[in-house]
Amino acid sequence: MAERQLLDAPGSVADDALDGLCLAHPDLIRRDREHGYVVRAEPGPVKVALVSGGGSGHEPLHAGFVGRGMLDAAVPGAVFASPTAVQIEAATAAADRGRGVVHIVKNYTGDVLNFSIAGELAGEAGITLETVLVDDDLATDGLPGPGRRGTAAVVAVEKICGAAAERGASPAEVAALGRRVVAGARSMALALTGCTRPGGSGPSFELGPDEVEFGVGIHGERGIGRRPFGPAAELVEALTVPVVQALELGRGDRVIAIVNGLGATPPPQLLVAYRNLAGLLTGRGVTVARSLVGPYVTALDMAGFSVTLVRADDETLSLWDAPVRTPALTW
Amino acid sequence: MAERQLLDAPGSVADDALDGLCLAHPDLIRRDREHGYVVRAEPGPVKVALVSGGGSGHEPLHAGFVGRGMLDAAVPGAVFASPTAVQIEAATAAADRGRGVVHIVKNYTGDVLNFSIAGELAGEAGITLETVLVDDDLATDGLPGPGRRGTAAVVAVEKICGAAAERGASPAEVAALGRRVVAGARSMALALTGCTRPGGSGPSFELGPDEVEFGVGIHGERGIGRRPFGPAAELVEALTVPVVQALELGRGDRVIAIVNGLGATPPPQLLVAYRNLAGLLTGRGVTVARSLVGPYVTALDMAGFSVTLVRADDETLSLWDAPVRTPALTW
Repeated sequence: MAERQLLDAPGSVADDALDGLCLAHPDLIRRDREHGYVVRAEPGPVKVALVSGGGSGHEPLHAGFVGRGMLDAAVPGAVFASPTAVQIEAATAAADRGRGVVHIVKNYTGDVLNFSIAGELAGEAGITLETVLVDDDLATDGLPGPGRRGTAAVVAVEKICGAAAERGASPAEVAALGRRVVAGARSMALALTGCTRPGGSGPSFELGPDEVEFGVGIHGERGIGRRPFGPAAELVEALTVPVVQALELGRGDRVIAIVNGLGATPPPQLLVAYRNLAGLLTGRGVTVARSLVGPYVTALDMAGFSVTLVRADDETLSLWDAPVRTPALTW
Repeated sequence: MAERQLLDAPGSVADDALDGLCLAHPDLIRRDREHGYVVRAEPGPVKVALVSGGGSGHEPLHAGFVGRGMLDAAVPGAVFASPTAVQIEAATAAADRGRGVVHIVKNYTGDVLNFSIAGELAGEAGITLETVLVDDDLATDGLPGPGRRGTAAVVAVEKICGAAAERGASPAEVAALGRRVVAGARSMALALTGCTRPGGSGPSFELGPDEVEFGVGIHGERGIGRRPFGPAAELVEALTVPVVQALELGRGDRVIAIVNGLGATPPPQLLVAYRNLAGLLTGRGVTVARSLVGPYVTALDMAGFSVTLVRADDETLSLWDAPVRTPALTW
């Protein structure tokens, strides 16, 4: 049953969902339909502009993070497909306030290529441009190919860089900060179900009743292996220990911890996962300085969740705490 | 597959999820484990206190709405079971700052009974007490029994009454305002799946591939009928037209519109539903003055959504817009 989706037409779901987001937040965001991007409803202060984007199907990412203290523009592609360089170039030009632009790009071949072309075009147009590549997904570490995928750490990068830009940092400073956040961030995800593309014939993979798919991404792709289903404590530990090890986290370290729902995971289950995550980290002497629990970087209707840890220090925590007002993140 | 749940033990899920919520928001809420309630981490200003509560399994309701500008205490029961009068009495005494307390109660027999007993005990203890009963669910209008159920309109009641209390209104004024909001609020919900109680043997009902359950509540109970599955536009219209008629909404009226996910409905689907809702209302000349789209009053892992419309005026919109800082609602 869960494969049935509430939509009007399979081909227009990305478009329709984006319409819905803009209609629900007319005070915050505005869609430029002709050029294919979303910008702040009001231009805001003169500062370095932040632009991100990527395939749709991950709502509220990225348009849900456009607003004061975070992004200036978001460029959505079709479901699970990169936006075009032309779209990104237009968004970059629209967002630029004469202080330069920082592109925040999740590490997927199409996104990297199209943001790179758009960046070159922006450079030719005289716009100072920096790029932060987000590649936090530990499941793809060391595999042949383009390197680690970018997943939920992008929310922390957008939040922290967004606050730095609001405080007057230069493009190079914002980008250096973003790279520092990325270097200290890793994620792992597991799925209880595949996801179904709108109009598709069924979920992207099938699991037995006692299995979870371990190391999934956010496009319904298979993970790196199957594990037995079990209590949340075991599943959270299986995701988190590799992340803790990769970041070499130990006693005295501080992190921002994100439990991200992949789309169809109900709130109580994410909260139970977070409880286990907090307990595990505290038990290892790692301080959970801040947290985020909810569906922020989703994979259509996939049931499952990811754990992201981001090394934190006084500077990044101060930027994390700075005011933000976007459709999906506000404080 | 979707019936598998991320939890540690079926018997402790309500408790564990509440722990997770409190751990994720130590700056906002604090749990009194001995007495079984959640209060603001910091007591806040001296003002009328707002207390709500009810069965668990509807997270983030109600503990997710404790904080500045909304509730002062929330009293959770077990999954789908009322909290006890003893718990409610303790929360009422803890929340009272000498200015009186307003109980916000969803219309279910157990909740009404236990809040009523607790209210009598509070009165005997010298606490000025008012009660607002929330009964927005149109699916149960006119049925024999205790009257309309309380569902997602409770979020609007808590937000608007919370802001009024923060502005210094008396218990009677807060309660009168709450009753006015309730009188102008109706909801309808539909489900694409039943929900599975933790440790239960399966979903609360089964649907054929071309059916939706119409008029469901938030406890996995069957609705008032089955309808054919169809495009979001048709499903949203089927939910919304009875609500518009019941509230006699027409040209020039203003509403707060809530599209509430029932637990397992992914963000893009809720946004598509909202797009249709906004279009339908605008087409009838009704102004969507404010909106809320997301999982706020859930039914465990049910896939589906509800539409709530709340009549709005300058006063209620000003109160809606007032600052709020809770785990699940912040602006």
